[in-house]
Amino acid sequence: MTAQDPLSPNSKAARTPDREGVLRAAAKIAEILPPTPLLPLEVDGVTLWCKAEMLQPVGAFKIRGAWHRLTDMTPLERKQGVVAVSSGNHAQGVAWAARRLAIGATIVMPENAPAAKIAATRALGAEVVLYQRPGQDRDAIAAEITARTGAILVHPFADPWVIEGQGTLGIEAAAQMKAAGIDDGPQHIVACCGGGGLAAGLALACPDAKLSIAEPEGWDDVIRSIEAGLIVPVADQSYQTPCDALQTPRTFPINFTILKSRIYSSAAVTPADISAAMRLVFEKLRLVVEPGGAAALAAVVSGKIAIEGSALVTLSGGNIDPNLFAKIISNNTVR
Amino acid sequence: MTAQDPLSPNSKAARTPDREGVLRAAAKIAEILPPTPLLPLEVDGVTLWCKAEMLQPVGAFKIRGAWHRLTDMTPLERKQGVVAVSSGNHAQGVAWAARRLAIGATIVMPENAPAAKIAATRALGAEVVLYQRPGQDRDAIAAEITARTGAILVHPFADPWVIEGQGTLGIEAAAQMKAAGIDDGPQHIVACCGGGGLAAGLALACPDAKLSIAEPEGWDDVIRSIEAGLIVPVADQSYQTPCDALQTPRTFPINFTILKSRIYSSAAVTPADISAAMRLVFEKLRLVVEPGGAAALAAVVSGKIAIEGSALVTLSGGNIDPNLFAKIISNNTVR
Repeated sequence: MTAQDPLSPNSKAARTPDREGVLRAAAKIAEILPPTPLLPLEVDGVTLWCKAEMLQPVGAFKIRGAWHRLTDMTPLERKQGVVAVSSGNHAQGVAWAARRLAIGATIVMPENAPAAKIAATRALGAEVVLYQRPGQDRDAIAAEITARTGAILVHPFADPWVIEGQGTLGIEAAAQMKAAGIDDGPQHIVACCGGGGLAAGLALACPDAKLSIAEPEGWDDVIRSIEAGLIVPVADQSYQTPCDALQTPRTFPINFTILKSRIYSSAAVTPADISAAMRLVFEKLRLVVEPGGAAALAAVVSGKIAIEGSALVTLSGGNIDPNLFAKIISNNTVR
Repeated sequence: MTAQDPLSPNSKAARTPDREGVLRAAAKIAEILPPTPLLPLEVDGVTLWCKAEMLQPVGAFKIRGAWHRLTDMTPLERKQGVVAVSSGNHAQGVAWAARRLAIGATIVMPENAPAAKIAATRALGAEVVLYQRPGQDRDAIAAEITARTGAILVHPFADPWVIEGQGTLGIEAAAQMKAAGIDDGPQHIVACCGGGGLAAGLALACPDAKLSIAEPEGWDDVIRSIEAGLIVPVADQSYQTPCDALQTPRTFPINFTILKSRIYSSAAVTPADISAAMRLVFEKLRLVVEPGGAAALAAVVSGKIAIEGSALVTLSGGNIDPNLFAKIISNNTVR
């Protein structure tokens, strides 16, 4: 792999994402994926507009960025394939897009990832390379593959296409709010945040909206980075959280540059906040949301983020083990 | 209450439902409710198109028939209000429509209905009249109210408007299949069946489709009626089933007349069939489906109904107690 540039871990991806890119991505995605529902949910007299991204074919919004990235690859690049490092939703997003475009995909996954997620990624036609966690360096494995094959690394969040692609959620939601009679929406966006790909994309997509982010307790590195004015990694990577989809050790400059000037408010949510939000989504919307996917709603329902104006709340994914889900909705908080 | 006519338990509703009515209802519903998603689900190499009606505002398709019925009421009728008898989804559908139209609604519910359903119906602004089950006759209570107030009884299935309204699910799905590139769909419809309101509506909506119905084991009175050529009630009303939404003791002539010439195949599904379908919906579609709402898919997944051509499968509702849902998805069949 060539030397890293300041914007992105992947030198081939060194460009600044922008709103034009988000709009272009939105047009491409509208051709292939129907909009996910935008469902109203009343919480303490306030209507929240919840974007049900668990209804994407792979169960999460990650399909958006992957589709934008892979469809922009040249014929030669497509021949050389793509590599992704992920134990979950991004893996399936990349694998799904690669299969539709007949691009070879190699996904580097931890050996102890849920068997269902490994099987789902293989079922999408991707080659899965397993590594031992801890012990082996997944980024080194991915770098070896890209160096050997010329394949493009599709980073889960520090990539301009991925950021633009995730931002399409905001374009779609704004159109849906307009159709529902809310012309100036969303005025406020509450997004879950791992590495900051989705939040940065939404910042570009909706330049006039207030943007709030929710991170899991112990994994609130983006919130701390914004407070500090520079990128700060997670202090203790062994900190337990049910939000596996948001366990990102640190954000990258390409995301941080966008977010640092846009974050209006933020909150770290606890496992109890998350469980309450998951149960609410079960009862009122009849949807399955995974812990990380419920973080934004958890921040609102717990009162940690106050809503101002017409609000878009991300329900970003729904890939969760049935036994864990059963425990949570039976009113047992799971840490 | 006036004497019953041969088509319907409500003399004010004595007309024959037809496809024109379904199309008119579909136009009215499109103005107020966005289409519920039609989600592809691959089962043994066959793509099933699943209509996610649990995403309706009240968590079930029943909102369709209620909206069609209430919007067709005259100003005088609206002043006199509506009455419905239901412990569940129909109650909420009628209450939702009545609130939107500022029509007074009285819902007769059993005292031992789930507290959450009683509370939800009251939250929608309806007056709830409780009766003791067994002991009091709910139809007599409703008859007394309609006689005293002139309110219109909105029957959960034996009503031409309700049948036409439920049929709009088929119009919506056909348009969605067309948008997905399936021009002649649906060729086959698999619907859950309680009293037969939804199935009769779909028969009218999609005259060229093969129509199959799924009923719960022990409550397969419509299947037996069609075999017998005349309406046969459920043999044992104490037979336990998890499908509370489909526990209808007998169908009515208005439904039976339509269904008897249209049913292509049918199946009675077991609690184990239902549980397997509910888990599949959880894992692959990330949706909450209640037992009765999963009956059609259960019939297909269990192999009891064979699919022929492009298939529409109803996922008709998602109102279920969280503890029961937790038990079912944790792989414990619940009877």
